[in-house]
Amino acid sequence: MSDDAAYTASVVGGTGFTGGELLRLLAGHPEFEVVQATSRSKENKTVGHAHPNLRDLDLRFSSPEDLESVDALFAATPHGVSMEQIDEFRDAAETVVDLSADFRLDTEDQYDEWYDGHSRPELLDESVYALPELTRDELPGADLIASGGCNATATILGLKPLVEEGILTGDEQIVVDVKVGSSEGGAGGGEASSHPERSGVVRPYAPTGHRHEAEIEQFLGLDVSFTVHAVDMIRGASATCHVFPGEPVSKGDLWGAYRGEYGEEPFVELVAGGGGVYRYPEPKAVAGTNRAEVGFELDPGNRRLVVFSAIDNMMKGSAGQAVHAANVALGIEETAGLEFGGLHPVGAP
Amino acid sequence: MSDDAAYTASVVGGTGFTGGELLRLLAGHPEFEVVQATSRSKENKTVGHAHPNLRDLDLRFSSPEDLESVDALFAATPHGVSMEQIDEFRDAAETVVDLSADFRLDTEDQYDEWYDGHSRPELLDESVYALPELTRDELPGADLIASGGCNATATILGLKPLVEEGILTGDEQIVVDVKVGSSEGGAGGGEASSHPERSGVVRPYAPTGHRHEAEIEQFLGLDVSFTVHAVDMIRGASATCHVFPGEPVSKGDLWGAYRGEYGEEPFVELVAGGGGVYRYPEPKAVAGTNRAEVGFELDPGNRRLVVFSAIDNMMKGSAGQAVHAANVALGIEETAGLEFGGLHPVGAP
Amino acid sequence: MSDDAAYTASVVGGTGFTGGELLRLLAGHPEFEVVQATSRSKENKTVGHAHPNLRDLDLRFSSPEDLESVDALFAATPHGVSMEQIDEFRDAAETVVDLSADFRLDTEDQYDEWYDGHSRPELLDESVYALPELTRDELPGADLIASGGCNATATILGLKPLVEEGILTGDEQIVVDVKVGSSEGGAGGGEASSHPERSGVVRPYAPTGHRHEAEIEQFLGLDVSFTVHAVDMIRGASATCHVFPGEPVSKGDLWGAYRGEYGEEPFVELVAGGGGVYRYPEPKAVAGTNRAEVGFELDPGNRRLVVFSAIDNMMKGSAGQAVHAANVALGIEETAGLEFGGLHPVGAP
Amino acid sequence: MSDDAAYTASVVGGTGFTGGELLRLLAGHPEFEVVQATSRSKENKTVGHAHPNLRDLDLRFSSPEDLESVDALFAATPHGVSMEQIDEFRDAAETVVDLSADFRLDTEDQYDEWYDGHSRPELLDESVYALPELTRDELPGADLIASGGCNATATILGLKPLVEEGILTGDEQIVVDVKVGSSEGGAGGGEASSHPERSGVVRPYAPTGHRHEAEIEQFLGLDVSFTVHAVDMIRGASATCHVFPGEPVSKGDLWGAYRGEYGEEPFVELVAGGGGVYRYPEPKAVAGTNRAEVGFELDPGNRRLVVFSAIDNMMKGSAGQAVHAANVALGIEETAGLEFGGLHPVGAP
Repeated sequence: MSDDAAYTASVVGGTGFTGGELLRLLAGHPEFEVVQATSRSKENKTVGHAHPNLRDLDLRFSSPEDLESVDALFAATPHGVSMEQIDEFRDAAETVVDLSADFRLDTEDQYDEWYDGHSRPELLDESVYALPELTRDELPGADLIASGGCNATATILGLKPLVEEGILTGDEQIVVDVKVGSSEGGAGGGEASSHPERSGVVRPYAPTGHRHEAEIEQFLGLDVSFTVHAVDMIRGASATCHVFPGEPVSKGDLWGAYRGEYGEEPFVELVAGGGGVYRYPEPKAVAGTNRAEVGFELDPGNRRLVVFSAIDNMMKGSAGQAVHAANVALGIEETAGLEFGGLHPVGAP
Repeated sequence: MSDDAAYTASVVGGTGFTGGELLRLLAGHPEFEVVQATSRSKENKTVGHAHPNLRDLDLRFSSPEDLESVDALFAATPHGVSMEQIDEFRDAAETVVDLSADFRLDTEDQYDEWYDGHSRPELLDESVYALPELTRDELPGADLIASGGCNATATILGLKPLVEEGILTGDEQIVVDVKVGSSEGGAGGGEASSHPERSGVVRPYAPTGHRHEAEIEQFLGLDVSFTVHAVDMIRGASATCHVFPGEPVSKGDLWGAYRGEYGEEPFVELVAGGGGVYRYPEPKAVAGTNRAEVGFELDPGNRRLVVFSAIDNMMKGSAGQAVHAANVALGIEETAGLEFGGLHPVGAP
Repeated sequence: MSDDAAYTASVVGGTGFTGGELLRLLAGHPEFEVVQATSRSKENKTVGHAHPNLRDLDLRFSSPEDLESVDALFAATPHGVSMEQIDEFRDAAETVVDLSADFRLDTEDQYDEWYDGHSRPELLDESVYALPELTRDELPGADLIASGGCNATATILGLKPLVEEGILTGDEQIVVDVKVGSSEGGAGGGEASSHPERSGVVRPYAPTGHRHEAEIEQFLGLDVSFTVHAVDMIRGASATCHVFPGEPVSKGDLWGAYRGEYGEEPFVELVAGGGGVYRYPEPKAVAGTNRAEVGFELDPGNRRLVVFSAIDNMMKGSAGQAVHAANVALGIEETAGLEFGGLHPVGAP
Repeated sequence: MSDDAAYTASVVGGTGFTGGELLRLLAGHPEFEVVQATSRSKENKTVGHAHPNLRDLDLRFSSPEDLESVDALFAATPHGVSMEQIDEFRDAAETVVDLSADFRLDTEDQYDEWYDGHSRPELLDESVYALPELTRDELPGADLIASGGCNATATILGLKPLVEEGILTGDEQIVVDVKVGSSEGGAGGGEASSHPERSGVVRPYAPTGHRHEAEIEQFLGLDVSFTVHAVDMIRGASATCHVFPGEPVSKGDLWGAYRGEYGEEPFVELVAGGGGVYRYPEPKAVAGTNRAEVGFELDPGNRRLVVFSAIDNMMKGSAGQAVHAANVALGIEETAGLEFGGLHPVGAP
């Protein structure tokens, strides 16, 4: 938290994992000063009480009833909360970045197909979806930003170059098999997420019908077959996209497509083949960072292309992406506050 | 190891993980007496030196040069070893059960497509592939048995009922996304399998071209798109098969197909939906057992069928399957020595 | 569950981890038939709904209000429940084995020192503490058995030979540093035991004042300095006892003491030095088994003796010990139903 | 790696875990520019080939035969290498920071007691031991710095305030029970550190006689009873010190002692009691950081004081401490390059 920060910020919903990551990033950000973090359950307790890595932060949780005026408000509340409180959020801040699914879809019809009844459907069109690699141009000056979902982000980053290059046209079968860590379930607990039951799993937790399909289809124009497995890591989302292009593609074509799309992107790294232990994208290689790793392999026998995409669901999949979006929206250097490059060796993590 | 065991058995390659599992199963088997376990690296050391769970077993490793005559010899040697020593094995035992890939394929052409040059191709046709649910009728009296591979077994068990019922005809796209534990890499070690590098991974270790495709295609007559990921567990192989049937299928059709195929099978359990924490097949639910869990879910929007299949790669995927095959071959009760039903709670495992 | 079982059994509190282990052991026991498992939360659901390894068991949870008459009732209820329902338990069964702490201590004074007020203090003296290696002679015919606690069992097994041999007299400093898995916290969940918070920990969860000290002091007559850490495993309790004998002891003395005590014990194994990976007691080497591993090392410089003791807290630390005790009480072969020897490789499963 | 860095630096032994951490820290340090990283096995390969988190770093490993002239050379070589090459190191750099044990002890006698024969004993007295909280005054201008060992650092930080305050005088029994992660074993691999064997362990890997005792005794003047266990984490060292003060101490005395010692220290945090999940020091709370957490609890019944100390062995236990020491030696801001505060949630990453 710089003394000469240019912008004030608040975090609504500061006790959850995503709220904690927002606080960590904003507190270390050269252009933001965190002036408020709200929590009902831990009101008046220090931020360090919920997040041991933030014990140095001189800040106590306050009630979400009394929002301070800030330049940017980040809402890390459960799905459905932001749409109810959006007027208060916008009264308090010029820029609202919502990390829930409430404002990610464009139309009420889309929303109703995947969720239950939106209370403020007129805002769906107004909000800007933030996956900055995809929607960078719409972000400057945006005042209502919907930060993209974790599994959707991993998938979209993997498939977008194929759409851009016409390798995928929308007629192909696309299977996306996702593996995620336990932090996606949040801080709440529950029997299935208790350590004895959740450790060592390969558990089909969303065999079909995962709501992030809606974001993927909206932004790529592709129908995907989407399945999510819980595996034994804390942070991380890894999407393996099995794609069957109509026309043969070469490795050269693919390198061209991916380099063309991501060559200048500060947070996307191509990892495909090469030597050593880490030859393809892996979530543990990006744990704690805002980086996405994207790579691919060809299976010539059956004309299949396998695309791998790995992110830290807490970072590029939520809090990091939200800060990245705010940076773009406010005209701050894109990488500000997001420079941490990760550890080696590291768990997940 | 029963005092009144009917058959003698030996294990060639007893220090590896698979060899250890064979020793454990045979030592606890009512009809087998283990008379020899071979090891070059630990010759003269007790079996418990390699396998702490077998410290009670009064047996020392001996040289693979001096094979004793037994009723059944189980070879748990690396790929390529059995074909070189097969004459010695067959001289020593009436029934040879090979756990490597050396005798799994039917023809030299198939073998050459996936491996490098077979030294005894004339035996490929003679050997019987052992996935007892699939080849039970060929096993009684067989004297050269090739126990099926772990990832192939999981996949075949998941897809076979769909082939039998004509739901899959060979024209469909079939994506098989497999997640496996670290025991598949064996006891050897190496940088990529060291604890710091292997923990917490979702690592595409065989993005394409995994050799078990050959077994799957041979026994199901299906071309599958096969990708294997390493995840953080020790035992376990979980196959998620994404299938797009040409004709619509109902849940009722599927229950019919799977119950028809596996209703009487002692080692296959249908797990699909229902309540509680364990609603679909999971490797940790079968850890240490010879059981396979198979289940499915329908994704109506895109006419996709997702089939889940989970096994313990050390058991149903290798040592358990080999003992099961030997039971059938010798006319022993199928479940003899394989009754352990697993633990709860359990890691992986 | 044998058809010709000699004894009927019931489990009160069948949904918890300990209840599940009891059901697993009794169902596989040659002399017991499980006729009832109670659960309030899962009444009428199959046992397999709570415990995926028991899906084959044809048994549904019933209300704890209607206890059937059985030969042996195993109570796996939270501390404080058994003392309230003990009359019902004893009405229903001739032999009651309680796995809680309710009847482990001998006197009301002891109980009050560590717990809050006992409602049936007159039974404290009547009940028999079951750590069969310690109290074998008191068990035959016992009708109220208090099965020993997990951390106490590990510690007592490690230290008992030193007391017996006079190496420890009660005047020495004894530090017991225990590491336990997450199954000790039960199936309940809660924030601290959620996978993201519980994974990868070395967490001092009982820095001082752990109640199992009471059992240790009662049965060894020793005052111990006891600290318990949570570490990343599911099953397992490992006690490292740092002991400073008043008189010098040699390795030979120690081998004599431990072999003398445990040479004939079916469930205690001495593991001290030797080669290979597993040179000292480790909980993962006994996971799923009723075996305890005990070993030691001398630190000559400071006249310290370090004793290591490892058990599976769900087995030798609770359900296995309870079945062992029932075997002795009823005159059944001690090892009946407890033969499973564990897996290799294995997590801490 | 700042463009206007004031100092050049090199890392000898850049492929190991510690070397990778040094490269990460120095590359992100405002005052250092990394001009060389050496490796025999990966000569000419990029640094990112060994360390996936450093793929952005434009640097290739070079031969250790051709050392460039730098301001500061960090040696992350195995024990015994630095003493052989120390002249070359000192020719190449004005400040040499050695991370091995070669120069940590003061006298040849001490060295010989714990290791085998020192080739340059005359340098033992000349080198400065770096545990900056302990030896800060000796570091400015030092040209041969021996960075403190991981387990020693954790222990010394925990016990030092007790020595300073006279609570420990050297006559007391002190048991130090340490739990460490797998990164302490380095990148090499080997059977015992393979994932299947190393996962889920509580393994007494140095029951007695761990060499870090020498550092502890040298710098605290205390004889400690030291035992190290391997547990299932990657990074982290946690020391639990069981201490029996001769005179009674109060919590107030202890808070006074620890606050007095560490109140101004940027990298030591007191964590003792309080609420929430993280009530005592835990390695996962400091993973990736240069922070040590220190805390304590009193056990009034037996006059025991339990001190907990947790660090990341790769950071405060090696690379972070080395950079901290170089900062002090060169007159750089102490916290420069070491600001990362850690993640939540996190494994033991």
